Amino acid sequence: MAEPRAKLGKIIVRQLPTNTDLVESIKKVCADNGIRYGSILSTVGSLRKLTIECVVPSDKSGSGFDFGPPKVIPGPLQVLSLVGVIFETDKGEMDTHLHGSFSDSEGKVYGGHLIEGENPIATRLVTVIGEIADVSLIERYDEESGHRLLQVEPL
Amino acid sequence: MAEPRAKLGKIIVRQLPTNTDLVESIKKVCADNGIRYGSILSTVGSLRKLTIECVVPSDKSGSGFDFGPPKVIPGPLQVLSLVGVIFETDKGEMDTHLHGSFSDSEGKVYGGHLIEGENPIATRLVTVIGEIADVSLIERYDEESGHRLLQVEPL
Amino acid sequence: MAEPRAKLGKIIVRQLPTNTDLVESIKKVCADNGIRYGSILSTVGSLRKLTIECVVPSDKSGSGFDFGPPKVIPGPLQVLSLVGVIFETDKGEMDTHLHGSFSDSEGKVYGGHLIEGENPIATRLVTVIGEIADVSLIERYDEESGHRLLQVEPL
Repeated sequence: MAEPRAKLGKIIVRQLPTNTDLVESIKKVCADNGIRYGSILSTVGSLRKLTIECVVPSDKSGSGFDFGPPKVIPGPLQVLSLVGVIFETDKGEMDTHLHGSFSDSEGKVYGGHLIEGENPIATRLVTVIGEIADVSLIERYDEESGHRLLQVEPL
Repeated sequence: MAEPRAKLGKIIVRQLPTNTDLVESIKKVCADNGIRYGSILSTVGSLRKLTIECVVPSDKSGSGFDFGPPKVIPGPLQVLSLVGVIFETDKGEMDTHLHGSFSDSEGKVYGGHLIEGENPIATRLVTVIGEIADVSLIERYDEESGHRLLQVEPL
Repeated sequence: MAEPRAKLGKIIVRQLPTNTDLVESIKKVCADNGIRYGSILSTVGSLRKLTIECVVPSDKSGSGFDFGPPKVIPGPLQVLSLVGVIFETDKGEMDTHLHGSFSDSEGKVYGGHLIEGENPIATRLVTVIGEIADVSLIERYDEESGHRLLQVEPL
């Protein structure tokens, strides 16, 4: 089955401000530039600390999976990867789903689901965000799995 | 020497189906949408288990390198990065070369070359694939190294 | 505040030559193809060895951070992620800022800031580079932090 065809719209390259939160800053850049739907293309730089959740087995979720407790890793850390999408909730609010990997001062690597508000940027961090055009990306609650799932629809 | 110039064609954003294999699902999305050549742009979500190969020194290969035995890591795991390309073999069959990094329930990070058929998707996994247009990407056997190498040619 | 709007220009997909340095090869591909500003979109393959720097706390830097001593990890290693940008210095010279994650023969994962000249490519390594068009990306020294920061300006 063919998917709705999207294309890349505008590209934003941005040095995010020191000491702001990584997830909040990405959302602000998108809001400031009229990007409702997007994808992280490349991100390089450092964080002061890292706060992530990891996925764990769970009897309570329909899917059998849930998030474990937040893990805080003291920084400074370098961004080794950042992946994910910018979309809207079914109430029309901007949201993100971002995972990444990071190395500490000794080169040890950590990674998981980024918790908004808890990942302050160190001095330098540049992100490249690509607008997804011609489709909408909306996350809706799925009863079967007990999770919100992304739905892609032609605009 | 200038390379053949490509451009990004269509973009497919897709919630891949629960319990399907990550590599097979990416190939199916490309086939369903007429993408012969492409690049993974961003992938976020979780796997039920991870099956990878790592590169090892080898006396038998012309290049001095080969793949070691498959490693299976029990899940659930989160995708921290997924990189690679979609191309064709010299027989015209779709193929992929995909590497990635993944974290388990404790935040420990693993990664390598993904083995097709052995990386089942958990509930949520969204991938963004970019079509590579204006060139062909074909992997051909290279006698000197004993490996298949990607050749990029203008269309 | 809206940023200068960029778009993706040409895309270069390239099998980088065996035994050349990863950072130098990326710069050469950009120079050969007239790419002054760009972003790494996807990179898959292997290195013969890895040489990285990690970020450490520092009393000497205005920002409180600096790079630690280089770490050399014997290969072969697989590329699990490569992120970063191609830009110019304030003297008009091409430069890059590249981080990545890599796994060794046992699947152990390492990562950090790539040191130019010290990351030789094994047999196979394919990179996908996207040209950033309609803006300039220039790194200039920032007195307050003691670091060079990327400035994005409309062309």
